[in-house]
Amino acid sequence: MIVWVDGEFRAAADAGFGAADRGALLGDGLFETLRFEAGEVKDLDRHLARLQSSGRALGLPDPVEGLDLAAIARALMAHSELDSAALRFTFTAGEGARGLLRAEAPQISRRLSCAPLAPAPQSVRLALTTIRRSPSSPAAQHKTLSYIDNVLARRHAVAAGADMGLMLDTQGHVACADCANIFWLSGERIYTPALNGAVLPGTIRARLCEQFSVEEGEYDLALLEAADAIILTNSLMGVVPVTAVGERVFAANPDWVEAWQDALD
Amino acid sequence: MIVWVDGEFRAAADAGFGAADRGALLGDGLFETLRFEAGEVKDLDRHLARLQSSGRALGLPDPVEGLDLAAIARALMAHSELDSAALRFTFTAGEGARGLLRAEAPQISRRLSCAPLAPAPQSVRLALTTIRRSPSSPAAQHKTLSYIDNVLARRHAVAAGADMGLMLDTQGHVACADCANIFWLSGERIYTPALNGAVLPGTIRARLCEQFSVEEGEYDLALLEAADAIILTNSLMGVVPVTAVGERVFAANPDWVEAWQDALD
Repeated sequence: MIVWVDGEFRAAADAGFGAADRGALLGDGLFETLRFEAGEVKDLDRHLARLQSSGRALGLPDPVEGLDLAAIARALMAHSELDSAALRFTFTAGEGARGLLRAEAPQISRRLSCAPLAPAPQSVRLALTTIRRSPSSPAAQHKTLSYIDNVLARRHAVAAGADMGLMLDTQGHVACADCANIFWLSGERIYTPALNGAVLPGTIRARLCEQFSVEEGEYDLALLEAADAIILTNSLMGVVPVTAVGERVFAANPDWVEAWQDALD
Repeated sequence: MIVWVDGEFRAAADAGFGAADRGALLGDGLFETLRFEAGEVKDLDRHLARLQSSGRALGLPDPVEGLDLAAIARALMAHSELDSAALRFTFTAGEGARGLLRAEAPQISRRLSCAPLAPAPQSVRLALTTIRRSPSSPAAQHKTLSYIDNVLARRHAVAAGADMGLMLDTQGHVACADCANIFWLSGERIYTPALNGAVLPGTIRARLCEQFSVEEGEYDLALLEAADAIILTNSLMGVVPVTAVGERVFAANPDWVEAWQDALD
């Protein structure tokens, strides 16, 4: 596989992270998962805006300064002989001296890699994890390289026989799935957790909230469990129905899923 | 600088992390900071026990299986021509396919690096950060590669004119400094936050709690602010007095600091 690294296309074996890279050593950086299809990166402007916003929040240089990510993505796809792909943009604070404090002017490092686009799952079973997200933690608000909570939420869920972890915040409000935003239908209304700090501001989430009437708020688990139908959203899967939360079974609502999938095309 | 990587001593330029290493991409791994002095790694057994315990908690293979870390450290010091050093052991879940889920049998990666031992600070000024630690987050309980909260706590503190960030948990209890445990003296009693999940179980903390009478509990910030004296502890600094928490000034208590420093020798 070919990886774009700081201006060069390299074989994966030559595209590693430096021994002193703060991304590798301290999770000091950001990533973005992008869908490439039909010759372009989907929702690229939203992804770029989120990267820039998160970069500012973390006190890092602009992650996409001077980059034409659309062109780099097209060239990477050509090098990789792929038509569609899951792209990953990885941005680190770069190499630095020992310790928590970054250099005054960090020499950032940037990579774009790709993998074949796996088909989205037909449905997802969630299991509630014990890992609760702190609304004041940058690791919960931003797609940082400090992703261990999500890794372990997934691990716990799979051990429990489910597909993905459901995460609450430290106050007990529903936050998200381990790699997706969550929406649910109760009666005539659709709900999703508000961006209170423990919820990643997903690009698909944003598009759907703009196009449809969605109530955003702080909701206890009981409200989710009383839903008529539940869906998850992220850049790679689009919209996918949830068929279980723990032992509780949910019917998919195909009309809702199709309407929202269509809205994203 | 020389780095030990999975059985070989390499130049730092050849000691990087693979492009698909989960440690670099997802913060999926652990690290340990060790003090090498007078021919040996201080408190090595406690560090090894913590690594193994954290490895189990994270569902990772034994981080030190088959390693004689004492011998590797001595050889690294000889290669590096250092007598004393800050060592860093970095353990990652290794290379894997895209996605949150690890391979069934992860091919872990291990590194030991060293840097000259900087003198411990004479004193530390703390600034309270807004980042609160979730007691159920593995990133708070263990010394994981997902360290962005600590990185940003430090950054906020330095921007506020202090040296280190003071972190509370999501319930408002005092947890720790961004890279150290905290103790304080009030009247005749010494207090430290209990290991409730938001506090890293420091090796120096453990030794001091065994040797001295210390009250462990959940304490509000007001109790810390009312202290007569405050100290921080970690493997590299040992015991260091705190002279400020935000605007509030604290006098060092040299008798206490010396007695505890002596107890660690």
